[in-house]
Amino acid sequence: MDAAGAMNSPPWSLDPRLDRDTATLGDLPLCRALVMKDANYSWLILVPRRPGMVEIIDLDASDQAALMGEIELAARALKVVTRCDKLNVAALGNTVPQLHVHIIARFRDDAAGARPVWGVAPAKAYDDGELERFAAAMRRAIGLD
Amino acid sequence: MDAAGAMNSPPWSLDPRLDRDTATLGDLPLCRALVMKDANYSWLILVPRRPGMVEIIDLDASDQAALMGEIELAARALKVVTRCDKLNVAALGNTVPQLHVHIIARFRDDAAGARPVWGVAPAKAYDDGELERFAAAMRRAIGLD
Repeated sequence: MDAAGAMNSPPWSLDPRLDRDTATLGDLPLCRALVMKDANYSWLILVPRRPGMVEIIDLDASDQAALMGEIELAARALKVVTRCDKLNVAALGNTVPQLHVHIIARFRDDAAGARPVWGVAPAKAYDDGELERFAAAMRRAIGLD
Repeated sequence: MDAAGAMNSPPWSLDPRLDRDTATLGDLPLCRALVMKDANYSWLILVPRRPGMVEIIDLDASDQAALMGEIELAARALKVVTRCDKLNVAALGNTVPQLHVHIIARFRDDAAGARPVWGVAPAKAYDDGELERFAAAMRRAIGLD
């Protein structure tokens, strides 16, 4: 973005619903890394810190490349920390328009089974300290500590 | 992949379930581009033609970059052809293990509404000629004709 564009754009801020539903891991060069407050799944969300983005194709080529690199970093760290059976990676945006990418560790016997996680089971609160322990492990694995 | 690796690896082939459920648009440099045979949605699938891949993080950095480029190409073409309200982009693999990326044109009043499409409505057959017309429009928009 050129200087004039930067001056005319509103600053980026996290969508209020994403803010409410997540805890913050920290900021990668492009994305804010979040953890969903749902103990049913080990569930990360990456949000490119660019104002007004809705689709992956709204990002320029350089940001798309950075996004893929941060998906690789976060997904690999999530697999190492959780030893999951499968990763789900998705940019849907059916309810929250701000561009965000879900990275979810899946297990054969988890709350959604063979289905995608969205809308299957109500969010389950983490036990005391459990979310902070998971977040700390993820920060270490991603290099955000 | 080095020459020895290439000789020892089985050749890539499309998963039989993906083959059964889709029509073929053609081959991009990395991915086979497919159309889901479900008239509820305009729904593309990209399958990297690399044997044994399950996760995006199984691809090397060069193939990850190529995948992002082909997602950009196919998603932009899908948006132009369908004038959809929203794109869904997802690598889930909960039922078919072969790495594949869904790119789905969504409309506010489509069969899944605000939900993800998977498991919501049974696949609907295309009317005679409708699938071939959509596939032809997509091939033109992607540059596969």
